[in-house]
Amino acid sequence: MSDKLSFLVFGAGAVGSVFGWRIQVGGGNVSVVCRSNYEAVKKNGFTINSDQHGKNIFTPNNVYSSAKEAVANGEEYDYVLVCTKALPNIEDPTIVLKPIIKSNKTAIVLIQNGIGIEEPYIKAFPGNPVIPAAAFIDSKQLENGVIEQGNICDLTYGLYTDSILEKDEEYKKRGELALKAFDKALISGSVGSTIEEHLQRSRWFKLIWNASFNPISVLSGQYSSSELLDNPGTCDLIKRAMNEVIKAGEAVTGGPLHEKVPSSHIPEHFVKFTRVRTTTVIPSMLQDYMSKRPMEHEVILRIPIEKAKAAGVEVPILETLYELLVMNEKKNLQ
Amino acid sequence: MSDKLSFLVFGAGAVGSVFGWRIQVGGGNVSVVCRSNYEAVKKNGFTINSDQHGKNIFTPNNVYSSAKEAVANGEEYDYVLVCTKALPNIEDPTIVLKPIIKSNKTAIVLIQNGIGIEEPYIKAFPGNPVIPAAAFIDSKQLENGVIEQGNICDLTYGLYTDSILEKDEEYKKRGELALKAFDKALISGSVGSTIEEHLQRSRWFKLIWNASFNPISVLSGQYSSSELLDNPGTCDLIKRAMNEVIKAGEAVTGGPLHEKVPSSHIPEHFVKFTRVRTTTVIPSMLQDYMSKRPMEHEVILRIPIEKAKAAGVEVPILETLYELLVMNEKKNLQ
Repeated sequence: MSDKLSFLVFGAGAVGSVFGWRIQVGGGNVSVVCRSNYEAVKKNGFTINSDQHGKNIFTPNNVYSSAKEAVANGEEYDYVLVCTKALPNIEDPTIVLKPIIKSNKTAIVLIQNGIGIEEPYIKAFPGNPVIPAAAFIDSKQLENGVIEQGNICDLTYGLYTDSILEKDEEYKKRGELALKAFDKALISGSVGSTIEEHLQRSRWFKLIWNASFNPISVLSGQYSSSELLDNPGTCDLIKRAMNEVIKAGEAVTGGPLHEKVPSSHIPEHFVKFTRVRTTTVIPSMLQDYMSKRPMEHEVILRIPIEKAKAAGVEVPILETLYELLVMNEKKNLQ
Repeated sequence: MSDKLSFLVFGAGAVGSVFGWRIQVGGGNVSVVCRSNYEAVKKNGFTINSDQHGKNIFTPNNVYSSAKEAVANGEEYDYVLVCTKALPNIEDPTIVLKPIIKSNKTAIVLIQNGIGIEEPYIKAFPGNPVIPAAAFIDSKQLENGVIEQGNICDLTYGLYTDSILEKDEEYKKRGELALKAFDKALISGSVGSTIEEHLQRSRWFKLIWNASFNPISVLSGQYSSSELLDNPGTCDLIKRAMNEVIKAGEAVTGGPLHEKVPSSHIPEHFVKFTRVRTTTVIPSMLQDYMSKRPMEHEVILRIPIEKAKAAGVEVPILETLYELLVMNEKKNLQ
């Protein structure tokens, strides 16, 4: 056994592969579980064209096709990076991780969009540090195993707690150690690393983009982000949906969603951020819709809507988008 | 010249043909202007299967293919029944009527959905009585010239006035006479006829169904009314959209939208009314969308939204539906 930290990237697509690659470059032992791109990655590894770091081949220490395979030789991982889509309405996301988590030693890092994703892991793996993250990364999988990445590769994360875990000193101590070592691993790989006490605010901040552009791109009849912004009506609708997320997020997390950008400037901030991107941005939900895959409407809309209402915030636009989206998906997946 | 009243049905489809037929049965002289069904109607008239009145052939006194043709022999009509779709965003609806309206004698009856449809006619034909109507009729054109109708065939209507016309005694006198004679003609043909002082309230009442079921049937991914009601999420969304229309309509018209049904019961009233219909109801917007025809989103959503906001009522669900619908149509009509 080496004394390197061991990482298992679960769902190594556009996001997981780049973080895995950087962590390996920084000195970590990085294995991956692939699904649709398994054959290609097993054979050739990942080809990653990065504006930040040039053109590279990333050969994971091990490439597996399933969780079972990843522990077949008794492996135990320091970190599991969950980079799959969050689809709790389709399957309990913890079942597939069961074979991998053997003790409290393994920290579970959730590099996924949406709100309310942590609860199932806390229940299924009591004692394991659960570390939700907000990824800011501009990567795309062009074909199986071939990744394109621009200049953004940052991870903001923190230890998940709730009213019970808040009093669990063992959990918090184990978690703090996991956070620190993870921070080191990321920095060694030149990933922008931020440990954030108010991590849920960062997740809601990211949700502002996701809960507006994503459903509207599907429901408007399949338009890219810039096409939606070029039409004054949908540009305005996007900003108004964003304002619902901002109000809800502030009420739920008890504070502003960004340290520097004032709430009233956030919609324009995201619009500008989206406009300057030179490549056509097809929001992930629209990509999923076009490929007849399930969309992440539960963690991006339903759970946030529930939390908003519980906090006394009305979100009629988000509710409208959610209901329409679910019905569209029903027909699309038939 | 006979002393029968003369009617020109402009746009004789599922709705116009049935009202024209009943008026002719009642003693009126009824000519029609047809577009897509001209050839069939010119040759065979209308075949109308009615639960109310049995199976009949309706042979209009004249069948024309255009407004010009309808006045080529110097005809002047007592009434023009405008039964076309209201698409002010696509063309000024009054231009096509210009040849027909020769004097103040002709009353213009607007048997169309939506809000704000009267203003263009008042401007284009000053002095002519403009009579907006709300049709409650369950008819369908199965193929060109072949109509199916159930048990509902009612027309509620009134003389349009605004702050200026309110003081125009000549207009009001001419209008009252037109209303009375129209009422007689309808009753003679066994049409449920109601002259309504607060006609705009009836129009907003009808809008409650139209502004909710119609756009949601398109945007949810093409579902019938009953499919939308069978899904709790969209059933709830429909009711919430209805409540926005009710609040807006009450604020704009200054009173309750129905004499008997209290506002809080209206959504459930419409849901029940829709559930008991035994045939599959494909809302007209969805029919138009599927046939790649323009939808009536201006008079059913945009103008009502504007009037709601001017009256201080927020309608976020309707605004969301409108913006999504316009973008869908853009792609659909390409």
